[in-house]
Amino acid sequence: MAGRLMAAEIAEQPGLWRARLGDQDAVRAVAARLRATPPRFVLLAARGTSDHAALYAKYLVEIRHALPAGLVSPSTLTAYGARPDLRDVLLIAVSQSGGSPDLVRTMAAGRAGGALTLAVTNAPGSPLAMAAELHLDVGAGPERAVAATKSYTAQLLALYLLSEAWLGQDARVATRLPEWGEAILAREDAIAAIARRYRFAQRLITTGRGYAYPTAREAALKLMETSYLGAQAFSGADLLHGPLAMIDPQVPVIAIIPEGVGGDAMRQALPRLRDARADLFVIGAEIPDAAVRFALPGGVPEEISPLLQILPLQLLALHLAIGRGEDPDAPRGLRKVTETL
Amino acid sequence: MAGRLMAAEIAEQPGLWRARLGDQDAVRAVAARLRATPPRFVLLAARGTSDHAALYAKYLVEIRHALPAGLVSPSTLTAYGARPDLRDVLLIAVSQSGGSPDLVRTMAAGRAGGALTLAVTNAPGSPLAMAAELHLDVGAGPERAVAATKSYTAQLLALYLLSEAWLGQDARVATRLPEWGEAILAREDAIAAIARRYRFAQRLITTGRGYAYPTAREAALKLMETSYLGAQAFSGADLLHGPLAMIDPQVPVIAIIPEGVGGDAMRQALPRLRDARADLFVIGAEIPDAAVRFALPGGVPEEISPLLQILPLQLLALHLAIGRGEDPDAPRGLRKVTETL
Repeated sequence: MAGRLMAAEIAEQPGLWRARLGDQDAVRAVAARLRATPPRFVLLAARGTSDHAALYAKYLVEIRHALPAGLVSPSTLTAYGARPDLRDVLLIAVSQSGGSPDLVRTMAAGRAGGALTLAVTNAPGSPLAMAAELHLDVGAGPERAVAATKSYTAQLLALYLLSEAWLGQDARVATRLPEWGEAILAREDAIAAIARRYRFAQRLITTGRGYAYPTAREAALKLMETSYLGAQAFSGADLLHGPLAMIDPQVPVIAIIPEGVGGDAMRQALPRLRDARADLFVIGAEIPDAAVRFALPGGVPEEISPLLQILPLQLLALHLAIGRGEDPDAPRGLRKVTETL
Repeated sequence: MAGRLMAAEIAEQPGLWRARLGDQDAVRAVAARLRATPPRFVLLAARGTSDHAALYAKYLVEIRHALPAGLVSPSTLTAYGARPDLRDVLLIAVSQSGGSPDLVRTMAAGRAGGALTLAVTNAPGSPLAMAAELHLDVGAGPERAVAATKSYTAQLLALYLLSEAWLGQDARVATRLPEWGEAILAREDAIAAIARRYRFAQRLITTGRGYAYPTAREAALKLMETSYLGAQAFSGADLLHGPLAMIDPQVPVIAIIPEGVGGDAMRQALPRLRDARADLFVIGAEIPDAAVRFALPGGVPEEISPLLQILPLQLLALHLAIGRGEDPDAPRGLRKVTETL
């Protein structure tokens, strides 16, 4: 059956979160190390879906830890052979498989440059885990669908729990995540109905701001790799700097508008989208002229909301692909482990 | 006449570069300050086209200055009110107009956090220039077309010359840029012919690696804002992590493959594009199965090649928009100065 693996892995997520929330010893050990030798700058390296988890972590670091952060362009360390001075830098690589050669080489260059290195993977024995000084296993179990789903939210949760422990906090606000996730997944029929609207869409825009921007990026990637849509993600601010011109009623827009600062900032772009007569699907807030809406549970702290926001969008990618006659478990031209040098 | 302003501003570029190369006093003054108080980290903040100039600067900083660097998510400093410790940080904001309120607030937050702040603008009296400790005027003169062209390459050149002066070098390799640029612009007819191929394209992919990746990003934005194409840019590595699935012969690919490390790295992705039966337009190298090619001058050092690579792509956006019956001087829904908070 098309999409069987992806569907099963989407469904596993709340249970995986529950298990991870119940066992935070490894997270605390890494956090203790960060508290003992506090970095002054954080760099993140990742590709594909994991790059969106890294972007989420960048928001955590900038906002909650008040540290400057950057996403590494891996080619500078690999292809160009740059050897930067990375003392006082925490270099975090995020990868499901831990097998991409360019990330392994990035870690090696980071250690040589004096960085404290941390690999966040779903593969404890992987080359990337071995190349880093510290390792955090996201514990999602084997992921067989090519389109990553459960490993993504497992990465988000591991990074959030690490941030909490590093701040010396107890992550209690996250304990309701599994029940919230289950409540969302129980509304799969609503997403299946929404997916039918997009059966013949050629292009699609996703947008969000702040913590919701990584969700927009990840949703676009899921739609590209399962449904072959030309899906493009923009921050709600960047959207107004040019890309807005290509929006008309034939280019649907999915806006992620959760409770909190990022959602409030996203609302600023809505009048301009209205002027462009955009067909709007809102995840979160109730927006009067949205064509479709999928509500999120109320009272979710914004910094953990990305784990929940992505669930309806994973389901959308699954149902849209199946509806278009594709098998999301085996996208054309892709392999599970992508080796870039 | 549709596109009159954009065409005139594209044509101005080599002359503007010549003027800037002949007067580097301001660049040297800023560089002297950076040499006197060397930063350990560099952060860059920008939106839209200027964000691609900032990305170019990030490659310069990582590769040539061997410093860790990051692109700021402005919302963390503005909407979320983060107040990071930015001692030893050089914070560079890049903006044509110098008028975007979120960048002005980012600069103020940067100064409050202890960063050395530098504004790179085309508007010396602008709020952004005033908000920063140091200012570099890119000197492109008034830009009236909504789609930025001459201000982009003026930003690239100012950032390159600053990098050279900061390294204590003389930028002699850049002296031939104006003649190379003129030679490319003289081949406008070839681009006009190529533009006709894409008259009915709905989507398009641009790709490059290393220094050529900002070119891919900027080309996609130009095509979006003038021709309303769903143009998406990916690094040659990220392309293989998912987006490859959506490529078929109906989704043309423009690959930037200059001489040098980035071009060599980009070639790694070509067999996978061939497998996907992609319709390939190459800017630069001679690739046997490319459908179309536009050659770049030989012997151009890779780090200044982005100034030249973007010229044929600016012309492509101009001619494609006109051919599709649009006026690239006045894209629907856009304003010249975008104010995001």
